Amino acid sequence: MSAAARVGDPVDAIDTPALVLDLDAMDRNIARMAGFARQHGVRWRPHAKMHKCAALAQRLVAAGAVGACVQKTAEAEALAAGGVQNLYISNEVIAPAKLARVAQLARSLQQRGGRLALAVDSGEGVDRLAQALAGARDAIDVFVEIDVGQGRCGLAPGPDAVPLVQRIAGHAPLRFAGLQAYHGKAQHLRSADERRSAIAAVLQLVRDTLDACAQAGLAVPLVTGAGTGTMAHEATSGLYGELQPGSFLFMDADYAANEADPAQPAFEHALFVKSQVLSRSARHAVCDAGHKSHAIDSGLPLVHRPEGGPPWRYANGGDEHGVLHADADQPLPALGQAVWLIPGHCDPTVNLHDEIVGVRGGLVAGRVAELLRVDARGELR
Amino acid sequence: MSAAARVGDPVDAIDTPALVLDLDAMDRNIARMAGFARQHGVRWRPHAKMHKCAALAQRLVAAGAVGACVQKTAEAEALAAGGVQNLYISNEVIAPAKLARVAQLARSLQQRGGRLALAVDSGEGVDRLAQALAGARDAIDVFVEIDVGQGRCGLAPGPDAVPLVQRIAGHAPLRFAGLQAYHGKAQHLRSADERRSAIAAVLQLVRDTLDACAQAGLAVPLVTGAGTGTMAHEATSGLYGELQPGSFLFMDADYAANEADPAQPAFEHALFVKSQVLSRSARHAVCDAGHKSHAIDSGLPLVHRPEGGPPWRYANGGDEHGVLHADADQPLPALGQAVWLIPGHCDPTVNLHDEIVGVRGGLVAGRVAELLRVDARGELR
Repeated sequence: MSAAARVGDPVDAIDTPALVLDLDAMDRNIARMAGFARQHGVRWRPHAKMHKCAALAQRLVAAGAVGACVQKTAEAEALAAGGVQNLYISNEVIAPAKLARVAQLARSLQQRGGRLALAVDSGEGVDRLAQALAGARDAIDVFVEIDVGQGRCGLAPGPDAVPLVQRIAGHAPLRFAGLQAYHGKAQHLRSADERRSAIAAVLQLVRDTLDACAQAGLAVPLVTGAGTGTMAHEATSGLYGELQPGSFLFMDADYAANEADPAQPAFEHALFVKSQVLSRSARHAVCDAGHKSHAIDSGLPLVHRPEGGPPWRYANGGDEHGVLHADADQPLPALGQAVWLIPGHCDPTVNLHDEIVGVRGGLVAGRVAELLRVDARGELR
Repeated sequence: MSAAARVGDPVDAIDTPALVLDLDAMDRNIARMAGFARQHGVRWRPHAKMHKCAALAQRLVAAGAVGACVQKTAEAEALAAGGVQNLYISNEVIAPAKLARVAQLARSLQQRGGRLALAVDSGEGVDRLAQALAGARDAIDVFVEIDVGQGRCGLAPGPDAVPLVQRIAGHAPLRFAGLQAYHGKAQHLRSADERRSAIAAVLQLVRDTLDACAQAGLAVPLVTGAGTGTMAHEATSGLYGELQPGSFLFMDADYAANEADPAQPAFEHALFVKSQVLSRSARHAVCDAGHKSHAIDSGLPLVHRPEGGPPWRYANGGDEHGVLHADADQPLPALGQAVWLIPGHCDPTVNLHDEIVGVRGGLVAGRVAELLRVDARGELR
């Protein structure tokens, strides 16, 4: 695969379409996040399903994060291979072949002073995990996932968690580490009030589950969850000890559509798809980035104009193209001109690219400062 | 990256999520397509933007195809590296750095007896291409793209093509090869009548352009275009000499939603995402395939049940999950059970995977017969 750019190239020379990261903006986002966690006295374990880069996971740990969350066994393997020490697969793993890999990865991380954690939501999941870990020297951390509104994985909150926690305690190679409680859908409720209300309901469900555990004499070491859209509410709840945001690092058009919440840190866009006009008519311009270059599950990209100028709007042009419109009487981009897109959703957009071109000095006069390999790109299993 | 399966494995052993190809069904689709082209006396140059596999492009050539279309310079490079000889980038290329690669690829294909072709829709595009090819020994084939209803790239049909054809003729390293005339949006018009009407309009626009060229004394060697949803109309038009379908090879849920047209060959689903249930509740099951495993630009996947049984419906569960529902009183899939998905759109789904697991003997009792590398996966530039 040919690289889009080399270190030292001016931004103008980056071939298109390419995923470009404004490293200065990302650094500011990291500083905001680290300050927020310090201020609220919570741990943060940023979700690497978003950026999938071992180098970025390590940079976040250097800024104070306790490790990284991932969603897939193969993502954990890719990040561990890139030197990340403390990994949490915040998802269920059921296939015996994958659980064997989980056991091996746990061993290999423990041997170098790291740790692996996993989520469960069924007795069968607990038993299968214990079987895969039979004879292991060190225990693996196991979080019990409860469904706090996402309507996907997880036990019903409340007393159902108790027998599962007890079941974990019955297996020597498993250590009950706490509750996984994440409400993904709440992150993108548009008004700050809706998000606050949704998390108030989450907190009640977490409290119900903690109460049930306490009544059964079970200590819950940690509650972990929260995302970029709501984390102020989890952080100040007194219940959550760890936050799992991912998108704060890059941000995207879907988060930009949320009403700002003064309780939340304000993050800025750092991730862009650089594209280029390859066809022009009197009506529109066509750029070389379609939905093989950026995900459209959360809407089409916004057009960013680092050089200034009147707005351009991006319309769906299929897998390989985007169709650009301007306001009446306003100029369209010229043939060959660069067009910068803010993707609708950063996570699946990053997953389309093998490399992120890191720029310093801005998108107009800046230069390529580093090339980041997307280590876990396509690691689905 | 860990492989999902090894050759010889039973279908049951394929790890999930994985892209699985029913090779027997694909072979039947190839035979139907080859028979259709023979019957109508047209060339076919299947679009490899869909499958992105050099091995499949070569298999299609062995079945009678004249070569492969691609949409990106880097796709052409990847397929050429995999031994494909006759490639057509059915899209505009404007960036000088890419045009230098086009020139180099043309040279390298010509040296081994192959050919490269490219589409243009602007005088500047023609001049830039000619500049990149200055001094080339052999000419490159250039198709003039006209916009026959897609509303994207391409000149207005009719007399506007004339000066562009003349401009091509003025550059020694360029050979005018004909017209590129593809109406992508017509492929998915739901009723057979709508598709027929849309292509009737396309044919009139092609005729207008051919007439304008004829009046200017310009010979048009070939008209190329058409897709899986409409190709019967282009094939019988007397105007098109070459068809560019891609999806016929694998098919997808979006094509399945089209009303059948007796004029068209009937292709069958050959491409599936194998997934697995990782969480169960009384209400639903959750599988491990979300839109990092399959594209959702053309709708969510359908659930296929090769083992038989009442229907399951797939609901969006985000990047990594799918939520499965059954009819009332009907059983949901069990924890760990395989769930087979027919992707909504095959092209961007294939682009999410590095490998396709080829199966013979069906999805229940079959075995893995080959692993196909997706050579041009992620080749965006």
